[in-house]
Formats: sequence, C-alpha cells, structure tokens
Amino acid sequence: MKTANFEAILEAYERIKNRVHRTPVLENQSINQIVGNQVFFKCENFQKVGAFKFRGATNAIMQLSDDEKQTGVATHSSGNHAAALALAAQQNNISAHIVMPNNAPLVKQKAVEGYGAFITFCEPTLEAREATLKKVIEATGAIEIHPYDNNQIIAGQGTAALELLQEIKHPDFLLVPVGGGGLLAGSALAAKQLSPTTKVIACEPLGADDAYRSFCAKKLIPSRNPQTIADGLLTSVGKRNFELILNYVDGIVTVSEESIVQAMQLIWERMKIIVEPSSTVPLAALLEKKIDTKNKSIAIILSGGNVDLSNLPF
Amino acid sequence: MKTANFEAILEAYERIKNRVHRTPVLENQSINQIVGNQVFFKCENFQKVGAFKFRGATNAIMQLSDDEKQTGVATHSSGNHAAALALAAQQNNISAHIVMPNNAPLVKQKAVEGYGAFITFCEPTLEAREATLKKVIEATGAIEIHPYDNNQIIAGQGTAALELLQEIKHPDFLLVPVGGGGLLAGSALAAKQLSPTTKVIACEPLGADDAYRSFCAKKLIPSRNPQTIADGLLTSVGKRNFELILNYVDGIVTVSEESIVQAMQLIWERMKIIVEPSSTVPLAALLEKKIDTKNKSIAIILSGGNVDLSNLPF
Repeated sequence: MKTANFEAILEAYERIKNRVHRTPVLENQSINQIVGNQVFFKCENFQKVGAFKFRGATNAIMQLSDDEKQTGVATHSSGNHAAALALAAQQNNISAHIVMPNNAPLVKQKAVEGYGAFITFCEPTLEAREATLKKVIEATGAIEIHPYDNNQIIAGQGTAALELLQEIKHPDFLLVPVGGGGLLAGSALAAKQLSPTTKVIACEPLGADDAYRSFCAKKLIPSRNPQTIADGLLTSVGKRNFELILNYVDGIVTVSEESIVQAMQLIWERMKIIVEPSSTVPLAALLEKKIDTKNKSIAIILSGGNVDLSNLPF
Repeated sequence: MKTANFEAILEAYERIKNRVHRTPVLENQSINQIVGNQVFFKCENFQKVGAFKFRGATNAIMQLSDDEKQTGVATHSSGNHAAALALAAQQNNISAHIVMPNNAPLVKQKAVEGYGAFITFCEPTLEAREATLKKVIEATGAIEIHPYDNNQIIAGQGTAALELLQEIKHPDFLLVPVGGGGLLAGSALAAKQLSPTTKVIACEPLGADDAYRSFCAKKLIPSRNPQTIADGLLTSVGKRNFELILNYVDGIVTVSEESIVQAMQLIWERMKIIVEPSSTVPLAALLEKKIDTKNKSIAIILSGGNVDLSNLPF
C-alpha cells in the first residue's frame, strides 16, 4: 500500500498555500504556568471552515481531473471534513455529496448546507456511513474523497505541522489529537523530516481509544461504539494512516472526558479563543501529566473550533 | 476642568507599549458579507486581563509617585478595570483595594483575587460603590484610580485606537462601545487627530442609554437602574469623558439586547474568538442598520473577552 510522504506535503503546501489561511501560533502565559511548560498552539480553529480539514480537502479537490470535476465528489464525515470538502468543491464549481451521521452537531450540518453541498443523513456508525456513501456514489458517479484514509488528504493535513515547525524550530514535543489519523499521520511525516528530535505524541480520548489499542497491538483494532465529547475523534484510524503512525509516531496517550472539558474551559477562558473538544485532547494530556515533559517545549495543533454554542459542557 | 489630550495618548503609548499586548486587528469574510461592509476588529479581548482596561490601569500606575506607590491604589469596578488595576499593581509591587458590586461576574471576581488584590463587595449601585470606596480609602490611605473619569485612564485607553489607526488607515467609521466613556473618549481623541475624516460613533445598549440621552441633551443625565447583558456598560458616563465625547464624538446609537446577543453569537461562531457582550454592541448597531454605512469601511474596538462560561445567553 502506497502511503503519503514528505515530498507530497511540500507539494501540497505549494498547491494550497494561497487557498488556506496561514493560521497563527499562539502562546499563553497563564497556561504555560499551569502546565509548567512553554506551549505553542497552532490555531487551526481559525482555518477556513474552522478546522484543519480544509487543507486536505483543498489539496484533494485541486488534483481532480477535468472529468472528475464534472461528476463531483462525495464523502462521509461527522462534520469538519464535510464542511471542508463542501467549501473546497464550491470554490471550484464542483458538486459535493456529503453523508453525515444524524448526530452530527447542528453547527456543522448548517455549515455544510451553507456551502451548497447535498447532504444525506445516516445512522452514526461506520457501517451505516460506508453503506450510505456507496449508494450515493452509485447514484451520482461522484469521486469518493475519504476523510482521512487518503494520501492527498494526509499530505494536505501535514501542511499545518509544516507551517508550525517553520515558526517554532525543534520543539521537544509535538502533540496531535487522533481520530481517523489524517492530521496525525501528516504531522508525524512533516515533523520527522523537519525536526527529527521532536517527539510526536498522539492524544486520544479514552472513550475512543482505538488508535492507542492498535498502536500497542501493532495491528488495526477499530472502535466499537466509541463515546466521547470530542466528536471529531469518534472515527477509527484508517489503514494508510495507521501504517504512517506505526512508522513515525513516538507514542499515544489517552485522556478522560473530564480532562478534555477542563482543557477546553482553560483555553476558552485564558486564550479567549473557541476550540472544539477534539482540539483540547493534547492539553488534557498535559493536565493529566500523561507525558514526561519536564522543562520541555511543546507544540500542539488545535484542530478546530466548530462547537454547538447551545450545547456546551460548562 | 482639564481633560486628556492627544499628546497624553502618545505619551501613554510610549510609557506602556512594552507592558501591554499589541493586539491583532482581525477581519472576517463571513461577517463582512452579512453586514455588507469591510469591518476591522481590534481585538482587545486578547489584551492582558482580557480587556482594554489594562492599558489605562498600567498608564495610571506607572505615573504614581514613590509615596503613592507605598500606600497603594483603590477603585470601584464591575470587573475589567478591577482586574486590570489589580494586575498592573501586582506587577509593580503595589497594593490594590477593589470595590466590586456583588453581581459582578464570577470570572471577573476570580481574576481580581488571582492578581492578589483586596476585594470589598457592595450593592450594585453607583452610590453604594462610591460610599464603599470612600470607606476603603479612609481606612487604607490608598490613591483612587477611577475606572474612567480620570485623564491618565482616558489617555491609556486611547492607545487601542492609536494602534488600530496605525494599521487601518482612515476607516470611514470607528465604532466604540460606551459605558463610563474611558475607551470612547480616548478613541475619539486619537481618531480626530490621526484620521479627521473618520466618523466616531458610540454604541450603547438601549437599556443603559445615559450616554445617548446625555449626548442629545448636551448635559450629563446619569442612568437610573440600567439593565443590560453588557455588564461592562452599566456605569454612567464620567464628567471628563462627557466633555471629550461632546467635543469629539460624531454620534451615538443604541441597540437592543437581542442584537447584542446575536452579534456575540456571530463573532463567536464565525471568528472563533470569545468576546463579552459589551464588545458586541458596535456589531449589533451594524446588524440593526442604525448607521448609514453603505460602501464604507468600519473599524470596531472589541473591548474585552471576560465571560462567565457557565452563564451564556445562547
């Protein structure tokens, strides 16, 4: 199985850099004091559609052939990839067909609608999502753009870490949340080339710990009925992603729901920025002292900021 | 009565520029589309203590005599000035005595405590605040640093507009929320010198519209029992502030509570930043089309981001 490589991330960066925001890297004194480290946050919550997913989606859409552009694209996604693909498609006058689980946050459903995509809802299981997507593709002929198990997507997501490591040279740690593993695989690829001394640690909710269990067992063990407030991390790791994770990720830690909410509240209160729970899993790992980071510098990718404001955990 | 002038703002800027954050000026495509204008937001929610108030407090604290530093400072404030004065005092090893209304948001009470100030609570009326402060000053000998009716405070607050107008040259409008009028007076002073063609419009909640009524009557008419979710704007305009407002402000508009909440939700959802209701009054004025801004560029000062996350209006 061919997986993405560092060269593909560099190409993706050149391809998409004028289409995506170069998001800021922020630091917060009060959070530094609380965790006892210098922490740099790459703010992909400020990315277009409010999440890093726009990077991968744009990279994939821009590589479609003319014929493929005619038939359009399709995917299943719990939200951010859906919005990202919808906007990237709209910007290129391409049709987007999105399969969404019926428990996807309302704010994400609205965003996808707003970008002019066609939505089909299904039960919130991987099986239902895949079966529904298959039907949609049969009916429309659209090209599937998988949310994470796709080399163009992985390469696109890797551009966030690329930018981060251009600004913050050689942090001791790079912490990345893991759901399907697109962001993690791309980040690890970028980090191991740009800063081989940086330890790449994946951070995962205990209630959706398939990446952790798979990493320990060195074989893919998908989640069954995962439960976490971090709705972007409910999906199980993809095959391509897992191969890259085994090769380039130094460790995986899991965190409790309480820590995820606590980290979210800290970031909202101290940094005055809005991040979704999936984004706060790495800071949760620091709060739980799951990683030995004494006197180390830490870079974190804040993956997104799409939250249902009428349904907050505090 | 001597009031602050533009020279004092320039001096304040030189005095405090290494102590305060130069906050970013952000733009948001989706908000631009909704209001039909190019809107630039000066993000004082990212200022130290989460509000512009740290500018004025720092400017005042840095001008104390050595004797005054010994006795410490005192003030009454519904929250942000309290936190600002407490931190500015702490950074200079000066005692701060803060009188707070007992309905001040918990997050602001906590912040003031965290900066090591001495808090005295009182009823949430101007009379109770002033009477309690008088007692505190009698007991401690502390120097009063009024939250807005103070030339050093006005000059310090004016540095936010100064920075904004250094970056955004000659916007057609500068919209500023008005409570006590420190930010408004300082902003108007700065704008009229740096960009005489810019119209300075104050924006005020209808439920606390003393500035509007005073401006129309050309005499100070304090609020009685003001009610608004914009807790930073409950205070009535100060004397020095009002003189500057009459001289330099082009107009005042009022907005409904519903628009304030709608504007707050827009900023949170689209910009992914946390602002308090007082900050969103100018955008509310644009949503209500209270100002004729067709084809005009607009600069807005987002005054702060201190919100009780457990008590949100959506």
